[in-house]
Amino acid sequence: MDIERSPLATPFPEMPAIEGVVLRVARAQYKEWDRCDLTFIELCDGTAVAGVFTQSACSSTEVEMGREQVKAGSARALIVNAGNSNAFTGYRGREAVEQIMAQVSDGLQCEPREVFVSSTGVIGVPLPKDKAREGVASALTAPECSWEDVANTIATTDTFAKGATASAMIGETRVEISAVIKGSGMIAPDMATMLGYIFTDASVTPGFLQEVLQAANGKTFSCITVDSDTSTSDTVLAFATGKAGNTLLTSFDDTGADAFAAAIADVCRQLAQLVVRDGEGAQKFIEIAVTGADSDASAHKVGLAIANSPLVKTAIAGEDANWGRIVMAVGKAGEPADRDTLSIGFGGHWAARDGQPVAGYDEAPVTEHLKGQNITVEVDLGIGSGRSTVWTCDLTHGYISINADYRS
Amino acid sequence: MDIERSPLATPFPEMPAIEGVVLRVARAQYKEWDRCDLTFIELCDGTAVAGVFTQSACSSTEVEMGREQVKAGSARALIVNAGNSNAFTGYRGREAVEQIMAQVSDGLQCEPREVFVSSTGVIGVPLPKDKAREGVASALTAPECSWEDVANTIATTDTFAKGATASAMIGETRVEISAVIKGSGMIAPDMATMLGYIFTDASVTPGFLQEVLQAANGKTFSCITVDSDTSTSDTVLAFATGKAGNTLLTSFDDTGADAFAAAIADVCRQLAQLVVRDGEGAQKFIEIAVTGADSDASAHKVGLAIANSPLVKTAIAGEDANWGRIVMAVGKAGEPADRDTLSIGFGGHWAARDGQPVAGYDEAPVTEHLKGQNITVEVDLGIGSGRSTVWTCDLTHGYISINADYRS
Repeated sequence: MDIERSPLATPFPEMPAIEGVVLRVARAQYKEWDRCDLTFIELCDGTAVAGVFTQSACSSTEVEMGREQVKAGSARALIVNAGNSNAFTGYRGREAVEQIMAQVSDGLQCEPREVFVSSTGVIGVPLPKDKAREGVASALTAPECSWEDVANTIATTDTFAKGATASAMIGETRVEISAVIKGSGMIAPDMATMLGYIFTDASVTPGFLQEVLQAANGKTFSCITVDSDTSTSDTVLAFATGKAGNTLLTSFDDTGADAFAAAIADVCRQLAQLVVRDGEGAQKFIEIAVTGADSDASAHKVGLAIANSPLVKTAIAGEDANWGRIVMAVGKAGEPADRDTLSIGFGGHWAARDGQPVAGYDEAPVTEHLKGQNITVEVDLGIGSGRSTVWTCDLTHGYISINADYRS
Repeated sequence: MDIERSPLATPFPEMPAIEGVVLRVARAQYKEWDRCDLTFIELCDGTAVAGVFTQSACSSTEVEMGREQVKAGSARALIVNAGNSNAFTGYRGREAVEQIMAQVSDGLQCEPREVFVSSTGVIGVPLPKDKAREGVASALTAPECSWEDVANTIATTDTFAKGATASAMIGETRVEISAVIKGSGMIAPDMATMLGYIFTDASVTPGFLQEVLQAANGKTFSCITVDSDTSTSDTVLAFATGKAGNTLLTSFDDTGADAFAAAIADVCRQLAQLVVRDGEGAQKFIEIAVTGADSDASAHKVGLAIANSPLVKTAIAGEDANWGRIVMAVGKAGEPADRDTLSIGFGGHWAARDGQPVAGYDEAPVTEHLKGQNITVEVDLGIGSGRSTVWTCDLTHGYISINADYRS
């Protein structure tokens, strides 16, 4: 099936090289396709690592192992296989991952646990060991490549390459962050979603890097949803090579720590929104801002109930200011809400205030707003000061076409 | 928009009259359409009533009032308005309901609280009081009509009329049950879903009728989902006229109580499955049987996670035995599960056993099964003895067409 490039796609940004990070891609031919599908990223000695992973009870071997590997805090390599998720493949899947870790650690003279492996694609087919072996062998000696090459090589059903960058000043030292991500379906927030990789030359302890990543995740990856379906393989890893030469960051008390955390969060937000922009069948990018909730956590749940509602998503696809469906979604969220203090708006125009349609409501500017590509929905619960923003896309015929025909 | 009759539709059954129940319909013209849209059902003196309602935090006035009215236990009339749900309409909506209750109780010389009112249709538009007044006036004197007339008059986006019947022996006395329901979208289980009305000539106390209805609800209406969206107006009411002359049922200890409860549950299951068969855009009826769970409640949640997964529903729409998506849905359910004891089958054929694809798995009979209209999915978690069955439909282009164009 030929899937068209998302109308919400953005150009791949200019991204700085990160000292201590070397990019290579190769062909393992996990599927019969004419493209690179194995990514090998070499990291210098002393690279700190942090990660967040899917909360799925059926997570892949790669996720199970990665969760353990992160605890040791150091990384020397990342391998990403595209076209086969290796999930639900039992001991045969695990053997394939261990083989890759052994092969790469031999090549780099490092510990196997310093080699991180991710896989994405079809579930239930063990990663073929022979293809992995040949792919890794050719990747170890492949020429260096660009960030965009990496973004394309980790992709599966993605319709455009996704990258983000930011920088921060730590004292007098400028540190750079470059990051790539893949994902467009089976996207729902549960700690982490999709495969995302963040690289920085900052000097930071693994423990603090983990703290920064988790905080950013809660406000970014955990705030997006395409289809409410959580993947078995979701992974976001952050690698810090320390080559920038800044004073080592160990906690939020250190000079520059806030700036660094803000830059990481900025990159995570960019990546998360790029995934929504490539949501399967997406024609509109939707931001849902919930205010006046009992707590921030409650606002978050209400926001996701709206973002995951098929009736809300199809109404927006149809450019219909059907705020009754938003009332419905608020009502089903299972969170504190009072029908008689609830207000709902689109694009800054209130349609309903305090439990009733706005007197003399003029639908024209709202309809105009809904015809655009970037939609905002405002929901004020009117009972507290909790707030949260989530991002999603509309639900269209494209989603059905992609998922009723494609075997993921 | 012209919506075609569901391919899963079944013929309207022969349904017995219930002594003490008189059916009438009229035109209130809540929308500009050429059909009856106001139902008036008169119930004899001494009719017991029970009800289950939506758990939505934004429920309609009708639901709020009905929940209170049921506590008094007696009913003399039911009014159902189609075309306007009167939800999210503040004090103006409440005034309209109170007007209807006063007008009907005047006509029948009963208490206003014995008049039950339901409304279904667009959210956020107060029910027009003048149309309601004229509609009720003409309904009070309308000729008697059939169950099928009632089923058609309470319908909105439904594509076929839905009724169910059963009988039970209480001692030597045969009691009859006739019931109608409407619903096809905004269907998700949360205590009660849709508008459903059950009538019986059995003699039963309101308290025991409530107990029987709640038990049936847990195994039927709470086990269906079309689109995971819970309505603001969901209501199922049961009315018992007592005209059959059986010994009054007061608890499960009474002779015939089990048979009566089984018949009520049977009718509820029929009604619930009819709603799924009219699920918006549905092409396939799907039964998901979960076994081997930690508990029945846990099995129920896993079943619903599968039934609500857009990726599972689109795979079945595409007749694709994509059991990897079932693994994903089990994993995201948030319930105890062990990837390595999980087994998945379709139509009685195992595709995966104990966390791995079945050796020599032959997809041909599974693919044949998926080409049919009635699909079964078997999931054995392999960790306990909890079990649950849920029902849903597939997710097709029809759902998108209906909901991106229609203002509900």
